[in-house]
Amino acid sequence: MITFHISSEDGGARSGLLEVNGRKARTPLFMPVATRGSLRTLSNEEGARMGFQALIANAYHLLMKPGADIIQEGGGLHKYMNWPNIIFTDSGGFQMIRSGFDLKVSQEGVTFRSETDGRIIRMTPEENILLQKKLGADVSMCLDLCPPYPADRDDLIRSVEMTSTWARRCLDVGHDTFCISQGGTDDELRERSCRELADMGFQGFAVGGLSIGEPREDMYRMLDIADGVYPRESPRYVMGLGSPVDILESISRGMDIFDSAYPTRNARHGSVMTSTGMISITNGRYRRDHGPLDQGCRCPVCQDHSRSYVNHLLRARELSGLRLATIHNLFFMSTLMSDARKAIEEGRFDSFKKAFTEAYE
Amino acid sequence: MITFHISSEDGGARSGLLEVNGRKARTPLFMPVATRGSLRTLSNEEGARMGFQALIANAYHLLMKPGADIIQEGGGLHKYMNWPNIIFTDSGGFQMIRSGFDLKVSQEGVTFRSETDGRIIRMTPEENILLQKKLGADVSMCLDLCPPYPADRDDLIRSVEMTSTWARRCLDVGHDTFCISQGGTDDELRERSCRELADMGFQGFAVGGLSIGEPREDMYRMLDIADGVYPRESPRYVMGLGSPVDILESISRGMDIFDSAYPTRNARHGSVMTSTGMISITNGRYRRDHGPLDQGCRCPVCQDHSRSYVNHLLRARELSGLRLATIHNLFFMSTLMSDARKAIEEGRFDSFKKAFTEAYE
Repeated sequence: MITFHISSEDGGARSGLLEVNGRKARTPLFMPVATRGSLRTLSNEEGARMGFQALIANAYHLLMKPGADIIQEGGGLHKYMNWPNIIFTDSGGFQMIRSGFDLKVSQEGVTFRSETDGRIIRMTPEENILLQKKLGADVSMCLDLCPPYPADRDDLIRSVEMTSTWARRCLDVGHDTFCISQGGTDDELRERSCRELADMGFQGFAVGGLSIGEPREDMYRMLDIADGVYPRESPRYVMGLGSPVDILESISRGMDIFDSAYPTRNARHGSVMTSTGMISITNGRYRRDHGPLDQGCRCPVCQDHSRSYVNHLLRARELSGLRLATIHNLFFMSTLMSDARKAIEEGRFDSFKKAFTEAYE
Repeated sequence: MITFHISSEDGGARSGLLEVNGRKARTPLFMPVATRGSLRTLSNEEGARMGFQALIANAYHLLMKPGADIIQEGGGLHKYMNWPNIIFTDSGGFQMIRSGFDLKVSQEGVTFRSETDGRIIRMTPEENILLQKKLGADVSMCLDLCPPYPADRDDLIRSVEMTSTWARRCLDVGHDTFCISQGGTDDELRERSCRELADMGFQGFAVGGLSIGEPREDMYRMLDIADGVYPRESPRYVMGLGSPVDILESISRGMDIFDSAYPTRNARHGSVMTSTGMISITNGRYRRDHGPLDQGCRCPVCQDHSRSYVNHLLRARELSGLRLATIHNLFFMSTLMSDARKAIEEGRFDSFKKAFTEAYE
C-alpha cells in the first residue's frame, strides 16, 4: 500500500511524503537510476548516505542479468543491492521493445528475443508486474507501449489503447503499482490516456513518452493536461526527466517524482552541473582552475577537490574522475530537490524557480 | 628528514614506525599505487579512511599530466589529491625509458620524447629529485636504470654503475630520498649495487629490478643479499612487489615497505583475494553464491554484498563492480599488513607466515 501525504502547497507545486512498506521519501523527489542494480561509479550505500530516499532499477535488465531467481535467492533487491530505501522498478517495456528484431506486441503482451541467450521470451502485463514483485520492488510500473517521437497519430492511438488495456491487467495483479500515460504530444490523446488511467484508480500516476525529443512547450503542455486530469491527492511521476529547469517547471505543474540518468550520464561525459549552468570540466580552461566545481556547493567533492584535479582525472581517463563528477552531480540534484521543497514550504517556489532558472540558463 | 624507529624484531622480521614531515606510517607497510594522483576506482580519502598511511605516485606520469606547475599551484600533491598521509613518488625512470623511441641514457641523465606533446625532454638525476620535491612528495626515489629481465651481464653492470652514479647526485640534492639497488639476479652485482648505495648513507634503501619475471628463489636470494648489506636500522623497501606470499617472505628477510598495483589491477580484472587464495569472481560458479567475497573478512564489501552481486556487476560491466572488488582487495592487503605487524610484535611471525601461505597457496 502506497500512501502519499501532501504537506504544503504553493501554487501548483506541492511537497509531501511518499510511504511504502515502511520506507519513506519526501517529495519533490529525484530518483537516481540503478538500471542494473548499481549506481555505476558509486557504492549504493553512498547514494543512500547522500540523502536519496528512492532509486529506480530496471526489471528487464535485471531479468537478463543476473536473473530474477538469483535476486530472489539473494533476498530481493534491497538486500542484493544493499539499498535500504524505496526501490521503484521500471517494467522495462521500453527496452524490451527495442532489444530484439522479433518483437511482437499484442493485446496479450510482448514477445522479444533475450539479448543474453537468444531465446524468445513472452511476457504478459501481469507477468511483468509479478517479475517486478519477485525482484522485490516496493513500487512497480505498468508495462506500457511508448512510441518513438515523432509518431503517426495511428501509432499514438494504438499506444494509448494498448497502454490502457495493459494497465487494467497490471492493476488487477494487486501490487503497489504506478500507471503511465502515453499519447505523445497530442492533447486529445494525452488527455484520454490520463483519464482512462485516472478512472482505474491507481495508487500513483506517471507521465511517459516525454523528454524524447519533443519541444519543451509541448512537454509542458502535456504536463498541464496530466495535472488537470490525474487525481490531485495522488503522487505524480514524470519518467525520464532530469534537466533541472524542466524538473522545476514540472514541479510547478503538480508533479512530484522524477528519475533520470541525466546527472550520472552527464558526469561520465565530463559535464558538471553548477548553479550557473552545466560546464564541460574537461575543457582546457579548467586545467589551472583551483576553485571548486561549483562555488558554494557543500558536496564532498567541492570541499576536497578542485576543478583542476577533476579535469586532470578525466583527461587522464582515471575512473575516479567519473566518480567525483557523479558524486557532485547527484549531490546537485539532491540539493535542488531539498531547496525546492523548502521553497514550497515557505510559499516562495515561483521566485525560487525563476532565480534558479535565470542563473542556470 | 626521515626517521625510522624499529619497535619489535622477530627473527629477520621487524615492525616499526616511519616518520617524515610529521606524517607517520607503521611498518610493515603496503602502499597502494596512485600513478596519476588517484586511487582509480576509489576517492583518495577512502584509501586514507581504509587505513593506508602512505601511497606512491609517479613523477613521470604527473609531469606529463597535469604537469608539475599545476600541481604546485594547486598546493602540492597532498592538497591536490586530498591525501593527508605520506606520499612517496617514484622517479618514473622506468616509464621514461620505455615511453619514447628517442631515449638516450648517459652519465648526464635521460632524454626522452614527451608522450603528450612530442617534445624532447632532458632530465638529470638532480632535476628528477627536484621535480619530485616540486610535486610535494614526502619521500622521493632516486632515478635508476632498470634493465629488463633477463639481461646480459654487460647491461647489468652498466645499470649498476649508472644507478650508483645517479644515486650520488640525487643524494646531493638534499631531499628525503630512498636509493634503489639494481644488479638483476646476479649475486655479485646485486651485492655491489647495495654496498655502493649503503656506503653513500641514504635515509632509506629500496630494492629494484625484481618481480619482473625472474624465478621466486632468485628474488628471495637477492633480498637476502640486500638484507645483509643494507644498514639494519634503515627502512628497506621492495619496489613493485604485491603478491601476499612474496611480501611475507620479504618481511622475514628484513624488508619493511612494499608497493604494487597488484591488488587494484587484479580487482579490475575480477581477481579477488581471499584467505584461501585468489578467486576469479566473474566465474559462473559464483553467480548464485550469496556468501561474502571472503568468509570472515571485515571489509565493507563483505559486510554488505555477496559474491553473486559482485559477479553480476562485473559481468554487466558496471563500474561499481571494479570499485567493490578494489575496496575488498585493498582491505585484504591492509589487514595482511596489520596482522603481520601484530605477529611480529607477538614473536610468532614465522608461524603466521606459514599458516597464511599454506591456506593461500
